[in-house]
Amino acid sequence: MTTRRLRDVGEHRWIAGLVRRLDTAPRVLIGPGDDAAVLRPSRRPLVLTVDTLVDGVHFRAGWTSARDVGRQAFRVNASDLAAMGATPVAALLALEAPGDTPVATVDGVAAGVAAEARALGAALVGGNLTSGRTLAVTVTLVGDAGPRVVRRAGAKPGDRLFVTGRLGAHAAAVRALLSGRRVRWPLAPVRVDAGRRLASVASAMIDVSDGLLQDLGHVCRASGVAAVVDAARIPVAAGCRRVFGPDAALHAATGGEDYELCVAVPARRLRALAALTARLGCSLTEIGRIVAGRPAVHVPGEAWGRRAGGFDHFR
Amino acid sequence: MTTRRLRDVGEHRWIAGLVRRLDTAPRVLIGPGDDAAVLRPSRRPLVLTVDTLVDGVHFRAGWTSARDVGRQAFRVNASDLAAMGATPVAALLALEAPGDTPVATVDGVAAGVAAEARALGAALVGGNLTSGRTLAVTVTLVGDAGPRVVRRAGAKPGDRLFVTGRLGAHAAAVRALLSGRRVRWPLAPVRVDAGRRLASVASAMIDVSDGLLQDLGHVCRASGVAAVVDAARIPVAAGCRRVFGPDAALHAATGGEDYELCVAVPARRLRALAALTARLGCSLTEIGRIVAGRPAVHVPGEAWGRRAGGFDHFR
Repeated sequence: MTTRRLRDVGEHRWIAGLVRRLDTAPRVLIGPGDDAAVLRPSRRPLVLTVDTLVDGVHFRAGWTSARDVGRQAFRVNASDLAAMGATPVAALLALEAPGDTPVATVDGVAAGVAAEARALGAALVGGNLTSGRTLAVTVTLVGDAGPRVVRRAGAKPGDRLFVTGRLGAHAAAVRALLSGRRVRWPLAPVRVDAGRRLASVASAMIDVSDGLLQDLGHVCRASGVAAVVDAARIPVAAGCRRVFGPDAALHAATGGEDYELCVAVPARRLRALAALTARLGCSLTEIGRIVAGRPAVHVPGEAWGRRAGGFDHFR
Repeated sequence: MTTRRLRDVGEHRWIAGLVRRLDTAPRVLIGPGDDAAVLRPSRRPLVLTVDTLVDGVHFRAGWTSARDVGRQAFRVNASDLAAMGATPVAALLALEAPGDTPVATVDGVAAGVAAEARALGAALVGGNLTSGRTLAVTVTLVGDAGPRVVRRAGAKPGDRLFVTGRLGAHAAAVRALLSGRRVRWPLAPVRVDAGRRLASVASAMIDVSDGLLQDLGHVCRASGVAAVVDAARIPVAAGCRRVFGPDAALHAATGGEDYELCVAVPARRLRALAALTARLGCSLTEIGRIVAGRPAVHVPGEAWGRRAGGFDHFR
C-alpha cells in the first residue's frame, strides 16, 4: 500500500475531510470550515495563549505518534491556562508541514488536539494548514477565567511554595531517547482542574515549562521577592532518578517540559489548601518559601543552586 | 557594528524587552508577560482565526521588511474576520526563528503586528517564541462579531456578486520579484470596516486568499449554488495588467493573496448596498451572479473558466 501524502490530497481536500470528522461543543456557534470560528460569549474574562511544537526542537519524528504530538500541543497550552486558574473552551490548530508529509501524520496531529479538547469539554474550532520545511504544530487556546485569576505577580514573603506532581521525567526521557534507548516520550499532565482549585488559595502561580528554577525566577521577578527552595524536598520523578542518579535533583530543578504547577500560598490560606489537596487529582509537595530580597531563587547547600538555570530556546 | 542575533539575547530577554514596548487597550485586563493574556468579556460572540506566513512560502527574506511581514501576518487574519463582519480585539503572535536570526528581524515582525493591531483599536496581548529552521509567523486573532455574522453558506440564486478593490496585484508582484525585478511586495488591504458594513446586506461573504474562482467555489459548495462570473467585469489591478498582459483577467481570477472581499447580495438589498458603498473605503465591483445548479464557478467564454483554479499549498 502506498502512503498518501499531503501533496496527493491537497490543502483544501484535507481540511474538508477533517472538518467532517470534528465534533462540536455547546459554546461553538460556527465551527471549522468557514473564514473564522464563532463562539457564544461568556460572562467570564477570556484567557488566551499560544504555543508551538517544532519537529527537531520539541520532539523528533519516531519518538512518539503524531497523535501524541497533537495531544502535547494542546496540553502545553492548557498548562498555561491552568496556571492562571482558567479552563479551555476552544482550540485553533495552525499546521506547517512539508508536501511529502503522510496524510496520516497531519490526521494524527489534528485528532490528538481534538481528543484533548473533547476530554476537557472544549472543541477544536478552526485552524490553518500551510507548507513549510518542517512539521510545526501551533495551538491557540481560548479559555474562560475561573472565579480568581492568578498571576505570576502576587507572591509575598512568608508564602509557602508548592509544586504539583513530580519533576524531571521529561528531561530523563529526552536524555534516554537521544542516547538511542526506546522509552516513552512523556506527555504533559493535565492540571486544569488542579489549577482552578489552587487558584482559590494561591498568591502567585506558574507552570513549569522551562525548569522549576527558571520559572520560579519569573514569579520572583514579577512579584519583587526571592525564593528559597529545599533541594531535598523537590519531588523527583522515578525516571529522573534512574537516568541521572546523584544529579537527579539538579535535573528535576532545571529540566524543562514538566508542565507541573508551581504555586505560592500565603500562610493564612494553608488550612484552605489542606482542605482541597485531596481533590487536586495529583500530589502537592511543599518545596520552599518566599522571602524578602532581590528577585532570585536560592537552593541552599547546592552548588547548582547559584545559577537559576533552565531552558532557553536560543542560549 | 555587529548584528545582534537571537542566540546572543535569548528567548526570555527578548520577550521581556518586547513586553515593555507593547501598549495596551481597554479590553485587555492582563497583557503579555504572564502565562496567558486576559481580556474583559464582550456581549458579542467571539470570532477566532489563525494564519501562518512562512519564509520561502508566503514571502522571501529580501522581498520586504520584517515589519511588513508582521503587518501582513496581522492583515491576512484581519481579512478572515472582515469576511464574517467581525472586528479584531486581540492578537497573539507565535514566532519560529533560527538562532542566527537578527534580533532586528523578530523585533520588526512584532512591531508590525502591534502597529496593525493598534491601528484597529486592538492589541498584541501575547505569544510565543521558539527556535525553528525557518522564520514562520503565526498570528491568532480574537474579534468581536458585528451585528450580523455572514458565512460562506447563504448565497441564493438571483443574488448579485461583488468584489472589493482590485485583484491580481499580489500575483503580479510575486511574478516580478521571482524574475529578479525590484517591485513592492503588496500588503493585504484592510477591509475590516468594509466587511462590517457589507455584512448588513450580504447573504454570503468570503475573503479572496486563494484566488477569486477558488474562494467563490467555497461559497458555492457551502451554499449549494453555482456562480456565473463575467470575466470582463473582474476589476484587474494595474500591476497585473502590466505583468500579465492578455492573461491579466486569468491571473486576477486565480492569483492568490489579494485579500479582497467577495460578497453575494440579494436583489432586495441592492438599494441598501448602494447607500453604503460610498463609506466602504474602497471600490466595489459587480462581477456576476449566483444561479441554481451544481456547485461550480462558470466564466462564460473563457477557456480557463472551466477549471476553478487557485492556490493550494500542496498541489
